[in-house]
Order: sequence, then structure tokens, then C-alpha cells
Amino acid sequence: MNNMPKNIPYILVSNDDGFFSNGIQALARLAAEFGRVIVVAPDTEQSAVGHAVTIYDPLRVNRIKVVDKIKGFSVTGTPADCVKLAHDQLLEEKPDLVLSGINHGSNAGINLLYSGTVSAATEGTVLGYPSIAVSCTDYDSNADLSACIVAARLMIDQVLKKGLPKGVTLNINAPSGPFKGLKWSKMADSRYVEEYEGRKDPLERPYYWLTGKFELLDTSPDADIQLLNQGYAAVTPIKYDLTDYDLLNAMKQNLEF
Amino acid sequence: MNNMPKNIPYILVSNDDGFFSNGIQALARLAAEFGRVIVVAPDTEQSAVGHAVTIYDPLRVNRIKVVDKIKGFSVTGTPADCVKLAHDQLLEEKPDLVLSGINHGSNAGINLLYSGTVSAATEGTVLGYPSIAVSCTDYDSNADLSACIVAARLMIDQVLKKGLPKGVTLNINAPSGPFKGLKWSKMADSRYVEEYEGRKDPLERPYYWLTGKFELLDTSPDADIQLLNQGYAAVTPIKYDLTDYDLLNAMKQNLEF
Repeated sequence: MNNMPKNIPYILVSNDDGFFSNGIQALARLAAEFGRVIVVAPDTEQSAVGHAVTIYDPLRVNRIKVVDKIKGFSVTGTPADCVKLAHDQLLEEKPDLVLSGINHGSNAGINLLYSGTVSAATEGTVLGYPSIAVSCTDYDSNADLSACIVAARLMIDQVLKKGLPKGVTLNINAPSGPFKGLKWSKMADSRYVEEYEGRKDPLERPYYWLTGKFELLDTSPDADIQLLNQGYAAVTPIKYDLTDYDLLNAMKQNLEF
Repeated sequence: MNNMPKNIPYILVSNDDGFFSNGIQALARLAAEFGRVIVVAPDTEQSAVGHAVTIYDPLRVNRIKVVDKIKGFSVTGTPADCVKLAHDQLLEEKPDLVLSGINHGSNAGINLLYSGTVSAATEGTVLGYPSIAVSCTDYDSNADLSACIVAARLMIDQVLKKGLPKGVTLNINAPSGPFKGLKWSKMADSRYVEEYEGRKDPLERPYYWLTGKFELLDTSPDADIQLLNQGYAAVTPIKYDLTDYDLLNAMKQNLEF
């Protein structure tokens, strides 16, 4: 690390599984191939928090050692909090790249909406930094992340060389173990059905657990989940401008106020 | 309510400020002009939770009375949880419309990403229901919501008559008090700067509060925040498919794997 010249890339790494996870350690090691690395990650698992930010509680920060010689900070907040706080307070210079992951579990299709991993990367994009989210389809914390590493290495190299257009985040999903290569993809149309299981507690009071069966509704050959099912890694360019411009233009013509 | 025929609309109302807020009470009353209303809302304020869903804790539900004769349920979860649980467990029939709000505080521009109010409506769209989010620019819990009511009344009428295209949510923002009318809008490019204030606790340990100055970067005449600043209510069609199709097509041509 100390041998690297000062103009080599400075890379912020975050995630939503917390800084103890194998996924962030693997991603931090990968990032270290490309430059100087700092990790800023939640101190506890923050899965499914989406783009939540902490507004009613103060954030606490601890200095941590993540893996090898890579250091960073743990934050008592969400993934989006981590990237905001890193940008505003913790980093000594502006990062050249923000990486989030490797998540244990896919962030393809509708899962993207709920993903803390993707939100950390999106927050990086909002703040003006090229940002990439990386997730493995296997939920096992000891899953084989080699496909994610290969896919992420290729995209990091491209993004550091060429940048990314304003407002765009790359969302990479890959299977565990061997894979057939990378494909550009779209977010697959998908949903959850039969979402909750009703139970009774020991005092006979009802409660509900989120469960749900995933349904893939999208048969497009470039839908991320279709590609993952075929053994490819899928790279989807996503944007945080949620405006539906096609409909906006249609509505302006059809419904004037 | 009991005089209404069975085929009149069934409307689910949620929010992120909790079922005690003036905003949801005003929206529930407005919804009652159009049909049968059920409220399913968080039992505590859930601002800035984004599209978080609760996966590691069970959800508890209590039967509540919101306002006038309108009843519903409070849920120990996020806005997205409320709409999911309503859909899967609490509603006796499928709703014709999902409304979320009226939020006390704007959900225009970049605020959209962090908004629990908008996420409740987006979750309604994901589940296949026409859905509308309504927010007032005034954070005061006693703000004059009349512009929101007028704007929402017009859009609810249109949506109940004509529906909404698949995958689209309407995001309405309005100023408090008198307004100049409605305009179709886009999500304004905007961001927060100088986001955190560092402080020391009584034991001299540092902590950080989220603060931040809002910056409007978008000068388009149809940017939602521009329109709000001019005294209009702004209606933005938003979609949950985050894929950047323009870039996807460009990348497929420029970077083949």
C-alpha cells in the first residue's frame, strides 16, 4: 500500500452485511489490487433497509481493521448513512470509486428496491462518485465468491479507466462458483407472493413473519434473473432518477391542467 | 359509508408519519369522498426509512380508529411493511387504489430516494395497484394541507377513472396554503451538502448528527422543486424499474463480453 504513488485510485468500500462479513473482506481485497482502500460499513447487519438514512439518532463511529492491512470505520447506521458520513466526515480525500458488497444474496429483480447494498452504491452516485454494487446469488456466508470477484474486477477496471455517466450506478449480480461470463442486463420484472406467515406467541397474541415466494415475471433474454439462472453474471446500469419520462411526455399531452 | 354500494372503490391509505398524523387523517377523509377506506399505517414515525422492509423481526398489528368513522390497523413496521401486510393479510378484498401521505415535508427531488411515504405507494405499484403518494412542502404538523387535498382529489378522480400504466406511481407534492394549480413534473436533480455536524457527548466521545443543506441543481422548468418554488403543485410519474435503458443499449454496443 505504502509503495503506491499518490495518484493511484482511492476506493471507498461499504456494504449492508456489516464489516465482519466475508463478502466485504473479499471486496476490500479486490479493491486493494486497484488502489488505496478505505472501508466504511455498518457495525451490524442491515439487510433490506433500502435507502434508509438515520435522521433521529446520532451516528457513532469506530476505527476498525477489516482484513489484511486494510483499515476503516464501522458506523452505527445504515449503508446509505455510511457512504454519506464517509463522504462528509471520514475520508481524507474524494474517492475515485465507491464499491458496495459483496452481498450474500442476490440483488436482482425486485430485490433491488429493498437492497441496502445497492443503496450504498446509489448514494455514492448521488454524491457524484462512480459506484458499483456487487452481490452473490448464494445466501451462504461462506459461498464461493469467485464469479463475483472476476466480474467485479472487470467492471472496476473499466470504470476506473472510463468512468460512468452522471447518475448511473452499476449493479452486478453473479452466481456462486463457476460462471459462463458477464452479460449486460435489465432489472427483471418480478415480485413476491404469499408474503407473510401468521403465528401466535405463547400468550396467544398474533404476529406475522415475512416469508414470501419469489416470482419471476420477466422472460426477456436480458433480464438479470434469467441470466443468473443460466449461469451468467449480470451487470445492470441503474439510475436514481425515478421519473418515468415516457409517461411524463404522454401525460403532458393527454391531461393538461 | 354503509350507504355506499359494494362496487364502489376500496382504498388503502398508509403513510410514514404514523396513524396519529394530521396528514393521514386528511388523506383518509379525502379518500372517503371516493369510496370505502381502510388505513394501515406504522405505529410510530418512520421518516427517511426509504424502501426498508422488516425481515428479522415479527410484525404486530393493532386495530385502530383513525378519524371520523374510518378504521384500520397500526403496524409495528415500515411503510413498505404496512402495504405488504395489508395486501397479504389485512385487507378483505383487493384495493382499487393505494394512497400514501399526506407527508409533512416535501418528497420532491432527491428526497424521493429516502422517502417512506413514496415507498409505501411504490410498494402498492409493485403489488399491482394504482398508487399515489402525497406530500406537503411544509414540515409543520399543523400545516395548511388544502393544496395537497385539491391536487390529490383531482388525481384520485383521474386514476380511479382511467387507472395507471403498469409499474408507475404518481408522486404529488404541493405547497401549504394557496397554490397556482397542478403541473406535470420530473424529479429535480438535487443533493445535500455539508451533511453532518460533529459533536462531543458529555464523556467527550464524538458523534454525528445528520443535518445538511439542500442544493437544487436542476433548472428545467418542469423540475418538481422549481414548480413548487413557483407555487404550483407538482405531479411526477415515477417507476420502480431502475434500469437505465439508454445506457444499457449503449453499453451492449460499446462493451461486449
